[in-house]
Amino acid sequence: MLDPTHWFTEILAKDGSAFSLEIRGKRHEEQTPFQTIAIYETTRFGNLMVIDGCTMLSQRDNFLYHEMMAHPALFTHPRPRRVAIIGGGDCGTLREVLKHPSVTEAVQIDIDERVTRLAEEYFPELTASNRDPRARLLFDDGIAWVRAAPAGELDLIIVDSTDPVGPAEGLFTAAFYADCHRALGPGGLLIQQSESPLFDDQLIAAMHGAMRQSGFADARTLFFPQPIYPSGWWSATMACKDGPIAGFREEDVENRPFETRYYNADIHRGAFALPEYLRHALSGGDRTSGQR
Amino acid sequence: MLDPTHWFTEILAKDGSAFSLEIRGKRHEEQTPFQTIAIYETTRFGNLMVIDGCTMLSQRDNFLYHEMMAHPALFTHPRPRRVAIIGGGDCGTLREVLKHPSVTEAVQIDIDERVTRLAEEYFPELTASNRDPRARLLFDDGIAWVRAAPAGELDLIIVDSTDPVGPAEGLFTAAFYADCHRALGPGGLLIQQSESPLFDDQLIAAMHGAMRQSGFADARTLFFPQPIYPSGWWSATMACKDGPIAGFREEDVENRPFETRYYNADIHRGAFALPEYLRHALSGGDRTSGQR
Repeated sequence: MLDPTHWFTEILAKDGSAFSLEIRGKRHEEQTPFQTIAIYETTRFGNLMVIDGCTMLSQRDNFLYHEMMAHPALFTHPRPRRVAIIGGGDCGTLREVLKHPSVTEAVQIDIDERVTRLAEEYFPELTASNRDPRARLLFDDGIAWVRAAPAGELDLIIVDSTDPVGPAEGLFTAAFYADCHRALGPGGLLIQQSESPLFDDQLIAAMHGAMRQSGFADARTLFFPQPIYPSGWWSATMACKDGPIAGFREEDVENRPFETRYYNADIHRGAFALPEYLRHALSGGDRTSGQR
Repeated sequence: MLDPTHWFTEILAKDGSAFSLEIRGKRHEEQTPFQTIAIYETTRFGNLMVIDGCTMLSQRDNFLYHEMMAHPALFTHPRPRRVAIIGGGDCGTLREVLKHPSVTEAVQIDIDERVTRLAEEYFPELTASNRDPRARLLFDDGIAWVRAAPAGELDLIIVDSTDPVGPAEGLFTAAFYADCHRALGPGGLLIQQSESPLFDDQLIAAMHGAMRQSGFADARTLFFPQPIYPSGWWSATMACKDGPIAGFREEDVENRPFETRYYNADIHRGAFALPEYLRHALSGGDRTSGQR
């Protein structure tokens, strides 16, 4: 029915669903030491990057994901200066981070340099700020990098990874979170993409548990649409090293010196609203979920 | 690749995307005087109703849609008694409406009785409250019904329709909104499903314009995930007959005498957050969008 000449299809076997984008053709495919990366030109979503058969980003809707991986955490921290991005090789999160004037250094550590090189070619709008003197691009193992980071050095760690299988599996463990906790300074924040709220509610609950177990004082999940990801509904989970996550720099959001397409102060507040079924699932630890 | 024996696929030609659910088989298909209705048994989403090739509801995720079509409006109105549902033949919205003790009468007007009869068979959990003495099921033209309704009779009109093509086209017009405005009493509310915020932002903007043109004093759009609908991200647009839409009965939400799976007070507040790009698109009329 959907012939592969004209459609790219990602099948999500465990949830019995599939999502397809109409394509003009496959523009590139390669096997790197870590994964298979393919680039398609779609008819309505611009260029599409696919890793190991999973949609990673499209030119049409990546603004939703990248803005929500960056701005809620950056505007929650009182003064984020040093930021590390684990994964994020397409540089879209890095671009959003660099929009914040308080940031003095943003290090991106992606294990696979080819993701970045292909982003430069097929998603040039995302890599346009890579020459910012505050940006540093490393192609290395993010887990080992965080483990070796000096204690208290970072204000924010953003984990912008693939699904918790393959190279990214170690990013969803208490051991990794403990390393993050150590590398963060006072008030430091960790934010990590946490999959679909519909399909992966147990993963989200497990992340909350593992983050607290690793010493984080608070964890909250935020929600946003991401049409090309499974279920079209996505989440990120934020943890604070040493205190509650409460409020954000609202005035700075209103006066931000850059444009956004999705994010604003209302979206920030609204994104943290927990669906009732997740309130119950997270009621073991999450403050918010304990209200009812 | 996705053979139709094992997958139901909805292709969204205008946006170059498709969504598929894995099926055990097709359980029913019929051509009614108005449309073609099919029922599939899926592997992970329970039963699925499809009308004219478009996914209407699945047992797994319809709670998101039905709760958001009902509770935000019902908890915004100070005391909703008489409610009309235009469309909504699967009775899922009616079920949520009947959970509100203040409601004395809920009339559902769907043009196609077969939708309801098939819902009784394949989605019995949604039709379970149809014998509630406050419920009245009519199978008739909702546009004509609203036109003939006594002025000022209703507190809330919920338009739970298919896409704005075919039988539902007339539900997205200023003429219909003017009839709704007349049928509503003081403080009366209209809420209507308003398609995908990603794909149909122009439709949402046009609805705001048409609602104001028809005499409504305020219109606001709310957003929620709906995985089986195009883009996985959906919206409903609410209009108030004679005053601003500001606030809701928060205490009544906290003390509601029924269970919800998605909706709660935080979700209510968060759902009205306007994405930045829609703020600009709606800045012609919407109060909220004028803030920046």
